Formats: sequence, C-alpha cells, structure tokens
Amino acid sequence: MIAQFSVVPLGIGASASAHVAKVIRLIDESGLDYRMNPMGTVVEGEWDEVMGLIEKCHRLVLDDVERVLTTVTIDDRKGRTGRITGKVESVEKILGKTVKK
Amino acid sequence: MIAQFSVVPLGIGASASAHVAKVIRLIDESGLDYRMNPMGTVVEGEWDEVMGLIEKCHRLVLDDVERVLTTVTIDDRKGRTGRITGKVESVEKILGKTVKK
Amino acid sequence: MIAQFSVVPLGIGASASAHVAKVIRLIDESGLDYRMNPMGTVVEGEWDEVMGLIEKCHRLVLDDVERVLTTVTIDDRKGRTGRITGKVESVEKILGKTVKK
Amino acid sequence: MIAQFSVVPLGIGASASAHVAKVIRLIDESGLDYRMNPMGTVVEGEWDEVMGLIEKCHRLVLDDVERVLTTVTIDDRKGRTGRITGKVESVEKILGKTVKK
Repeated sequence: MIAQFSVVPLGIGASASAHVAKVIRLIDESGLDYRMNPMGTVVEGEWDEVMGLIEKCHRLVLDDVERVLTTVTIDDRKGRTGRITGKVESVEKILGKTVKK
Repeated sequence: MIAQFSVVPLGIGASASAHVAKVIRLIDESGLDYRMNPMGTVVEGEWDEVMGLIEKCHRLVLDDVERVLTTVTIDDRKGRTGRITGKVESVEKILGKTVKK
Repeated sequence: MIAQFSVVPLGIGASASAHVAKVIRLIDESGLDYRMNPMGTVVEGEWDEVMGLIEKCHRLVLDDVERVLTTVTIDDRKGRTGRITGKVESVEKILGKTVKK
Repeated sequence: MIAQFSVVPLGIGASASAHVAKVIRLIDESGLDYRMNPMGTVVEGEWDEVMGLIEKCHRLVLDDVERVLTTVTIDDRKGRTGRITGKVESVEKILGKTVKK
C-alpha cells in the first residue's frame, strides 16, 4: 500500500520546519521508499511497516509539543507494488508527456 | 487521542452504505467510544486501540473489493481524555448555546 | 453536495476553541444546514454556497493568526440532497438500529 | 497559498488514471505552478485561482461519473510565496542534504 501522511505540531510558532526535518530524518532511516512533497510525505510498504513508521514520527513530534495533528491517507490496491512511482507514470503514459513532480 | 476515519471502497457502484454498515458494526463491537457523522466516524482511545480498529475496518472492506481508500485524522493532546464530547462542549460554552450535532 | 471542513490556526497556543467558536457562529448564521463534530463541521449546499462559506471562515481565522491550515472533503453525488442526515440513516436502516452520532 | 487536492471518481472500476489524466491536463493548462505526487497535486496561487481550478477539475470528473470525492488541504501563510518549492528546501537546508521528491 502507499500512504501520504503529515504530522503538524500545534501550540508552537508558525514555522514547523525543524519538526518536519526530524520526521524526514526518521523516514529516511526507515528504509521504506518515500517521496516528500510540500504538503506531506508518501511512503510505500506493508501496513505494519507504514503505520509503525507513522507512529514513531507522531510520537517524536509529540515529545516536543503539547498537541499534534497527524493526517494519513492510505491507497491500498490488491496485488500492486511500485505504485509510489507507478501511479504518476500511468498518467504520464496517457498524456504522452512528463508532468511536474 | 481522538481520530476520525473513513474507509472508501473503490471499483464498485456509487453506493458504499453496505460496506459502511459492516464497518460501523465492527466499531460498535470494539467497545471504543465513537460518533458517526456523514463523512466518517470519530473514535477515542489509545494509539494501539484506535489504529488496531482502523486496520480491522480497512481489511474488512478490502476483503470485498479490489481497492480501498482509507483516511485518518488524529488529534492527540497530552493529558486530555473525554475529548469526543469535550471539544464540542468547549465551543458551546464559549457561544453560550448548543450547536447542531 | 456535502462537505466536511476544519480551519486550524497555527502559530498560537494548543487550544483553538475560541477561533472554532467564531467559525461556528459564521456557519450558524449562513443558513446552510450543518452538523458539528469533534473533528470538523459538515455542511450541505451548492458548490458556491459551501465554498463561499469556507472561504469566509478561512479568512476570519487568518485575520487573527499568521498561518491557517484548512481541510475540505467534498462528497458530491448527482441528484441527491438531504444527505447530511440521509447517509447515516441509510446505514442505520441496514443495521436495523440507531448509531451514536 | 498552496493547496493539495485530489478528485476521486466513485462508481467506476478500480483504476482512475484516465480521469486523473484529464484533471492533470486541466491543471497544466491553468498556468498555476503545480507538482503532481502519487496521492494528489499541489498548486500555488491566490484563493480564487486555486479554488476556481479545483472546481473545474471536480466538475470535469463529475461529468463522467455519478459520484465524486474531492479532498483539498490548504496551507495559507501570510506574506509568503514560492512555498511550492520553498517548504521542502527549508527542510533540506536544516538536514544539510536533499530528500527524495
């Protein structure tokens, strides 16, 4: 399955980039394939791998602040892997050109 | 923590109410406090309880269909419980009147 | 169509209930049918009505803080109205009992 | 502001890539800066530009199917532009290395 998630610290200043950097370091060290975008990070793996990683990221940020808002969107399609790149490639194939990523 | 989630079956007809009913039965039997709304269900509990329940619901729907889209939004505030009713009550207290729920 | 939305102020303390109360007052005055839940508010109406209201709520909170995170989920099904109550009722009919709302 | 959105057709088969391709073509022609990822597309612009584009995409897909689920997450920070690349760059600067995008 693939999942996009974001972990938002509440109760601090308007910038969250220091917390996001700590989260990205954890994702990078997890060994799961990932892609970061301006609104969250997409990871691919089995349920336990992905959710275990998200729990770690959630707790890491909650260590520092009083309240955390974590959002997860899971797209799970039977028998498919490589979708972290495959979904965009399918669209590019139909369009006959590459898109901005 | 409290979390709202929804499990959307893809690749079937436009109505998902039969699948949603099976999910709600599972939530109701879990013993966790919950509130259903037109766009999802809010549950309250510890991380493992809530995420364990969401995994069960996700797998139940994925048993029947080829693809599932599951969305989870977690609001985790240190040292607070009873937020499944408390958050709305805080707003009603400020407004000095009840709101439509 | 029905839409759930939430407007989260960033860069302030951990409690957002004062801002949420201002948003709910605006929703209540809009005349659109709505239901508040612990994670957001569901409204029903045409695209322009619903999105016009969400824009007002977003700008109201942004007047007070430096950064706002607004989330909107739209469920639009052709030829259907009354879904703000109808979706839950469909599930209750299948289950043969009422659910916690 | 920047906003990530996705438009999911319901009531069709498990693959949505033909509909997504039509949506991406519309986004590409809009002139707004965008980045596509496996779970949605991030666009940057003023409220009316971004929401006007999302409405067009929503209606385009709803022309073909009975039901559409559209999700929008808006991150609006006063006085900031160029955030479609700037947010990730801030994190890379803290980490001292590039991340997978």
